[in-house]
Amino acid sequence: MPSANASRKGQEKPREIVDAAEDYAKERYGISSMIQSQEKPDRVLVRVKDLTVQKADDVVWVRARVHTSRAKGKQCFLVLRQQQFNVQALVAVGDHASKQMVKFAANINKESIVDIEGVVRKVHQKIGSCTQQDVELHVQKIYVISLAEPRLPLQLDDAIRPEVEGEEDGRATVNQDTRLDNRVIDLRTSTSQAIFRLQSGICHLFRETLINKGFVEIQTPKIISAASEGGANVFTVSYFKNNAYLAQSPQLYKQMCICADFEKVFCIGPVFRAEDSNTHRHLTEFVGLDIEMAFNYHYHEVVEEIADTLVQIFKGLQERFQTEIQTVNKQFPCEPFKFLEPTLRLEYCEALAMLREAGVEMDDEEDLSTPNEKLLGRLVKEKYDTDFYVLDKYPLAVRPFYTMPDPRNPKQSNSYDMFMRGEEILSGAQRIHDPQLLTERALHHGIDLEKIKAYIDSFRFGAPPHAGGGIAVGKGDDAVFRIA
Amino acid sequence: MPSANASRKGQEKPREIVDAAEDYAKERYGISSMIQSQEKPDRVLVRVKDLTVQKADDVVWVRARVHTSRAKGKQCFLVLRQQQFNVQALVAVGDHASKQMVKFAANINKESIVDIEGVVRKVHQKIGSCTQQDVELHVQKIYVISLAEPRLPLQLDDAIRPEVEGEEDGRATVNQDTRLDNRVIDLRTSTSQAIFRLQSGICHLFRETLINKGFVEIQTPKIISAASEGGANVFTVSYFKNNAYLAQSPQLYKQMCICADFEKVFCIGPVFRAEDSNTHRHLTEFVGLDIEMAFNYHYHEVVEEIADTLVQIFKGLQERFQTEIQTVNKQFPCEPFKFLEPTLRLEYCEALAMLREAGVEMDDEEDLSTPNEKLLGRLVKEKYDTDFYVLDKYPLAVRPFYTMPDPRNPKQSNSYDMFMRGEEILSGAQRIHDPQLLTERALHHGIDLEKIKAYIDSFRFGAPPHAGGGIAVGKGDDAVFRIA
Repeated sequence: MPSANASRKGQEKPREIVDAAEDYAKERYGISSMIQSQEKPDRVLVRVKDLTVQKADDVVWVRARVHTSRAKGKQCFLVLRQQQFNVQALVAVGDHASKQMVKFAANINKESIVDIEGVVRKVHQKIGSCTQQDVELHVQKIYVISLAEPRLPLQLDDAIRPEVEGEEDGRATVNQDTRLDNRVIDLRTSTSQAIFRLQSGICHLFRETLINKGFVEIQTPKIISAASEGGANVFTVSYFKNNAYLAQSPQLYKQMCICADFEKVFCIGPVFRAEDSNTHRHLTEFVGLDIEMAFNYHYHEVVEEIADTLVQIFKGLQERFQTEIQTVNKQFPCEPFKFLEPTLRLEYCEALAMLREAGVEMDDEEDLSTPNEKLLGRLVKEKYDTDFYVLDKYPLAVRPFYTMPDPRNPKQSNSYDMFMRGEEILSGAQRIHDPQLLTERALHHGIDLEKIKAYIDSFRFGAPPHAGGGIAVGKGDDAVFRIA
Repeated sequence: MPSANASRKGQEKPREIVDAAEDYAKERYGISSMIQSQEKPDRVLVRVKDLTVQKADDVVWVRARVHTSRAKGKQCFLVLRQQQFNVQALVAVGDHASKQMVKFAANINKESIVDIEGVVRKVHQKIGSCTQQDVELHVQKIYVISLAEPRLPLQLDDAIRPEVEGEEDGRATVNQDTRLDNRVIDLRTSTSQAIFRLQSGICHLFRETLINKGFVEIQTPKIISAASEGGANVFTVSYFKNNAYLAQSPQLYKQMCICADFEKVFCIGPVFRAEDSNTHRHLTEFVGLDIEMAFNYHYHEVVEEIADTLVQIFKGLQERFQTEIQTVNKQFPCEPFKFLEPTLRLEYCEALAMLREAGVEMDDEEDLSTPNEKLLGRLVKEKYDTDFYVLDKYPLAVRPFYTMPDPRNPKQSNSYDMFMRGEEILSGAQRIHDPQLLTERALHHGIDLEKIKAYIDSFRFGAPPHAGGGIAVGKGDDAVFRIA
């Protein structure tokens, strides 16, 4: 299939045309024609991560990107990259490679994808710059499968350099705008590959844990006919001759599923907030992980289930994604994440006392500001040695209308947030399951009852006590992934 | 905690007030005050499905809905329902229950949630109308936890009656509008409970299979800055001072992930189409299951991976969800689903020949109409005895601009649909990974290149050959779940 001469991209060839008659290796390299599924060759492509001493002296085919190339006399060293793995390859003038072939290899644009046939050779000195340190590939054939343009908008090695290191020694790093404008290349770095795998892993662990606990996954509508939850910060959609709105959360729907006897439900999906802010905590679109659950007598049954779900995610990441965590840590150094079992639960008044002792002035019914959240995170870490905790019993005044008041103290509520490293990651509460009280609280919040009629009506035919919570994952990473 | 007298809902009590002094059981029944997490009683609630002869003579607590009640002299029979399970309960005048208590039980509105203490008794004649056929519950205490309004907008027993049966014997069924207007109640039926569990199971099996195959789950943006894929049928969102659009599919983003070296990706999320039609195949919002995958030499590598994923889902449903399938079949009778391993793959020209032989007139480059899809499904079932097959090599003219043309025949393309019971469930293709050919094809389709610049640019720095496909799940069921 590969052909050195017939190519769509002939005009882009990075090599000089030399006298073909002299070239005894001319069939062994070149630019392949575009793969259009012309044929099904019986060729096995070996994965770069499987190139180890066990394969020493084997002849293998590998498909990978040209990460770097360096010509040196009659030789050319390539680093071949496949996802987060790389291996050194050598093209040297000899039986298999001609002078022209070495030159061809040396001139392949970085990030091009190549098919290489080569012999796996054990090396005597470890190759520190590659993940496959004990072998190199002695190239016998090399064909370009997809040619990259000659100038890369960013260098992958720059993109994984820790900011501080780059600043200190004057070496380049890549700024956020360049990354976002060239996201496809930025995502090829070992750090991005690891972050995306961790994000996929978090969703997988979340669902795996909940399915094992008997939860049912639901899909909730995103285009809705009335702005729910008060109507602020909602996006309007032109819906044929009318207007519709983008759901700000699956809150109402997951509660309706509880009223419909599913008992334990979760969903993962986009959430839309028309907040014109520029912080990593305020995005117009992010992915929400939502849980809702009926309980028997006390909402702490739900708090424990959610906290345990998060603990299972932390443990699963540490067990199954250690390599990815270490890869991210190389670029973004970080203390290991600490958590307790069972999870620490503090009441809001205890947190207030800790903050006041640290000199913060706050009212009893005041919400936590971002700086105070962070300070509290540090105080809790010092006192309890945990990066994860539940803050329980928030003031009723700072929570949504559907939050169950605390029967012992009308200024408190049966609501909670969960924190990681001093930032709120989940907000939840016991919900009001009584239509009469729900109506009173909605009126108190100035909400138009007509707009939430279907919601309130869903509690009129028997509703179990229930509680839940929502987590935002991938704030930041998804938004920047957008074509913009 | 339960109290017969102090109740928020005192005015709604369904029982007559009789002389309390005479009532020796007055502490044993009543309407509980709203559960606001006042206390954490040490009480274990037994699941209805666990009420079997193994528990005979045990005293248990159960929380369930009152499905039906029937008073008969000094006795009242209740059917207690918990999700898809139910059990008979008996309140009879005697040591534990007074005349007043029996009357109270008989008057509890259907769908109310109750806490019952009772003795599990083995019955001598099976109770055919309940899932728990070998036992009944002899009630000692009964408290209403959440009271339903007296008039139900639909009866659950009507809602699970097969259409034909209802028509034949004059018994009631429930029409679609009533179901949608009272979705919370409609979802409580055994059929709806099973459908939602099956839908959750499909998503779980899809992800489980793909994670095991080494795929990475991604989240793609829904609010986008330019109408991609041609711009027809796209919803406009007011985005602060500008307009934005709702993504019609994750197509461009999942391909960009392939260019970013993830090799195998999938996503599950909402897809938006501004199609003003009223068929179950055209919805403005549905949940898409999307796959994209780099391949080595031939897109059939991807076709096999996707077909195998679907086969794993079919098998998983048959193995793990047999009860749910049977429950749905009771209301919607259906032949068992048949499939082959490996999956049958037909070429479009073969399908045309089969249709023509059956008397259909079609051009070589014409797409399949819905009636022809269904007819083909029947012809394939007769000939090959399968409800699932792949139709390969569609005419290029009927596929999107990014579809790879067939190099052997310029009127064909490397594209495929997958069919279940004569309906297309997945559409896919090898995609063009060469920016020059992609530009040519976009221009041929009259697409504004400026709007897809970021997409085309993502192929400029080395792109592997790749293919994929998208499935729609829950068309119909999600939309009707909307507050409307």
